[in-house]
Amino acid sequence: MNIVVIGSGNVASHFSSAFVEAGCRIIQVYSRTSAHAQALADTWAAPAITQLSDIDTTADVYLTAVKDDALEAVLSQLPPTLNGIVLHTAGSVEMAVLHGRARRYGVLYPVQTFSKKKYVDFGHVPLAIEASDAETLESLSRLAGLLSGRVFLCNSEQRLALHAAAVFACNFTNYCYSIADDLLNEHQLGFDLIRPLIRETAEKVMQHKPKEVQTGPAVRQDVQTMDKHLQLLQGHPDWVELYDALSRQIGRS
Amino acid sequence: MNIVVIGSGNVASHFSSAFVEAGCRIIQVYSRTSAHAQALADTWAAPAITQLSDIDTTADVYLTAVKDDALEAVLSQLPPTLNGIVLHTAGSVEMAVLHGRARRYGVLYPVQTFSKKKYVDFGHVPLAIEASDAETLESLSRLAGLLSGRVFLCNSEQRLALHAAAVFACNFTNYCYSIADDLLNEHQLGFDLIRPLIRETAEKVMQHKPKEVQTGPAVRQDVQTMDKHLQLLQGHPDWVELYDALSRQIGRS
Repeated sequence: MNIVVIGSGNVASHFSSAFVEAGCRIIQVYSRTSAHAQALADTWAAPAITQLSDIDTTADVYLTAVKDDALEAVLSQLPPTLNGIVLHTAGSVEMAVLHGRARRYGVLYPVQTFSKKKYVDFGHVPLAIEASDAETLESLSRLAGLLSGRVFLCNSEQRLALHAAAVFACNFTNYCYSIADDLLNEHQLGFDLIRPLIRETAEKVMQHKPKEVQTGPAVRQDVQTMDKHLQLLQGHPDWVELYDALSRQIGRS
Repeated sequence: MNIVVIGSGNVASHFSSAFVEAGCRIIQVYSRTSAHAQALADTWAAPAITQLSDIDTTADVYLTAVKDDALEAVLSQLPPTLNGIVLHTAGSVEMAVLHGRARRYGVLYPVQTFSKKKYVDFGHVPLAIEASDAETLESLSRLAGLLSGRVFLCNSEQRLALHAAAVFACNFTNYCYSIADDLLNEHQLGFDLIRPLIRETAEKVMQHKPKEVQTGPAVRQDVQTMDKHLQLLQGHPDWVELYDALSRQIGRS
């Protein structure tokens, strides 16, 4: 399988590694920014391009992994005659944006968070797929199966829900960690002190449903403790707002 | 070391196991509820009591691990002549509540979340300690050191901050998981799909500061995606309230 990668960020770069590990070939890397295209292309000894008019029209797959708001512009510059499958990787973008942009197209959405420096074992990343037609779906399913043992069908509406769920489970969670970090620093305590708690909180829901393992003053309706916390947080209206909203909701749930 | 355990919940039971593993002896277990006292006491072949007037006055340590709002009542029933160290284990209760209740007292607060069924390796649990006097602090420090390699001094005000930080990093995080679970179910998707993401989100902050690894539409100020999510969440005013507050704060941070 010959693959053109369109984009050079975390998703593009983690996908590229996974494709190469699976025996595919990256034959071209596109990025608007020459240095970015070059950096990722060099890793795979592939040519870098900064103009989509230079795209290799012989590839089997065109994987777009660019910012959501750049996707339309990228798609509009693709030659409409490509024979390969054009894929996007965005959680909250409908497959329909690809309609009319390519003959065969689909979505390959990884339910995972990627950072520049941290290796992720793609073999366990759930991959949501959706395709323009049955034949393309079969090809996409085979391709995704090379990368991960957890491939599943998911329509655009479900994918949006999945993406929103990921925002709660990952982005909002990380922001809660970040408040904890700030709060500890303010009191001359290190973030290291709650790292084991963070890990255990995540590990608990690997086996259980979150609702079954909810703990803390809010679920106990321990008003005295919540009042002490709110008083402590007084200087931070943002934190008070969240503490209040989250505790109210946990208390009702 | 002979220990009387006052309480029979998760904290009492995990502490008991850790004490026994460390070579201490549980010589009595108190709970208001006979069956609870008996269940934990049986594990260690110790007598169970349901009246604090029956307490063994020869113990080296009295560990109270009861609900915050039950602590005062328990303390008021302890014979004031005890020679052992009376400890409480609560994050948000000042050490001062022990004043006048015992000659030697202190706090032993574990920064971890405990469930009934899940084993926790106490050796890595950060233990915050505070004591009535230098000599007691030394004894407490030695005792805590038997349980964990991560013992640290922490005054009552710091401990309250630590407890509030734990609420953000554990309880609120778990509630975010729980919303994700509900949202997925609503769209015929399983919670299993985001378990790897949850684990990776926690693992990321083992090495990095949360602020350095914040991702998602809010930190990118990707208004289009946030609008799609908000529209999807419309039927759940609670979720909209959180999505909005958290995204606003992440955007500003």
